[in-house]
Amino acid sequence: MPHLVILYSGNLEKVVDMTGLCRNLADALITIRDEAGQQVFPTGGLRVLAYPAAHYALADGGAAGLAAGVGGDYGFVYLNLRMGRGRSAEVKRVTGESLKTVALQQLEALLASKPVGITLQIDEGQEVFDAKISSLHPLFKDR
Amino acid sequence: MPHLVILYSGNLEKVVDMTGLCRNLADALITIRDEAGQQVFPTGGLRVLAYPAAHYALADGGAAGLAAGVGGDYGFVYLNLRMGRGRSAEVKRVTGESLKTVALQQLEALLASKPVGITLQIDEGQEVFDAKISSLHPLFKDR
Amino acid sequence: MPHLVILYSGNLEKVVDMTGLCRNLADALITIRDEAGQQVFPTGGLRVLAYPAAHYALADGGAAGLAAGVGGDYGFVYLNLRMGRGRSAEVKRVTGESLKTVALQQLEALLASKPVGITLQIDEGQEVFDAKISSLHPLFKDR
Repeated sequence: MPHLVILYSGNLEKVVDMTGLCRNLADALITIRDEAGQQVFPTGGLRVLAYPAAHYALADGGAAGLAAGVGGDYGFVYLNLRMGRGRSAEVKRVTGESLKTVALQQLEALLASKPVGITLQIDEGQEVFDAKISSLHPLFKDR
Repeated sequence: MPHLVILYSGNLEKVVDMTGLCRNLADALITIRDEAGQQVFPTGGLRVLAYPAAHYALADGGAAGLAAGVGGDYGFVYLNLRMGRGRSAEVKRVTGESLKTVALQQLEALLASKPVGITLQIDEGQEVFDAKISSLHPLFKDR
Repeated sequence: MPHLVILYSGNLEKVVDMTGLCRNLADALITIRDEAGQQVFPTGGLRVLAYPAAHYALADGGAAGLAAGVGGDYGFVYLNLRMGRGRSAEVKRVTGESLKTVALQQLEALLASKPVGITLQIDEGQEVFDAKISSLHPLFKDR
């Protein structure tokens, strides 16, 4: 944890550097500090995964965009972070604002080029069972 | 919001018009009205995304279907709607029934052609942070 | 139900038999028994779906692995089971341990070959609407 999963309309695949977006979001998460100045999300536990949708339907399908002269090829990006329970309200807020800033910077040109919706949501995991097996995390044992 | 994500076994990719299913489900969501006659889901916020699974395992893997003479190439479609908090029980019920009707109509031939399971679930988002950035939503500002 | 969705970094696509992992996880779920000796998850309702991520970012992106001499091509596998509400704490625990054992066996060589993180989480569905349509489930009516 945390896991950030990005779901997006497939038409954005060729116009957005999604690998770069994943990396920049991960880098932003690494920098988050709690009230005591401690790193909130262990580096070894950061995972950002992005999935273009093979099929999708957005809003009215394009009519309003065509009518407004901005084109009907809408786009959508959904960023969903799942973090462990028990973080403070302030940590949640700072995490959200940090991810929002990165998404906005990276997708600004896209937003200007066509009608695009971006939604960012953070969930607290409510899992009833949790297990981790890792040959990755030990590389970061002091963090 | 709302977001409807469809996960399905990859063997259905060539036998179902998933883009059409996405559109019809979105159109159904646009028509939902609350008790006061107001549109429940803003048109500009509707997103339906569908993902064929690269790998999957269903039920017993095919033995029972082969034994029953209906074939062992099972299929599965999971429709998961996430809506914002605070809608009435009646809105949730009507939304579910509406999506179920569309799925049933569109997948009726598939259900008859092979053993297929369809599950529809609606979740209320419990997000602890939510942000939206959009050049799409403003096209629908009066809805 | 239950639904087990596996999300993983795309670099594992060629080095892990994900179809085999799906099948072995499904087979493990079939064997789970409750305190009364009854099968917990109906065979006809078992679905395991796996999705390689088109884009991803893991941990620090590779620097620590390179520095440690184990390579920077990290991998990640996330297994997320959603089960119906109301199972006992013991059933949840046994289900989790069973899936963990299968994942560990099947991914042991991968874990040894490169820095890989595996996370398994079980959620109880909190759906506000649920519908099932099936020409698959009736094949297993006695289970």
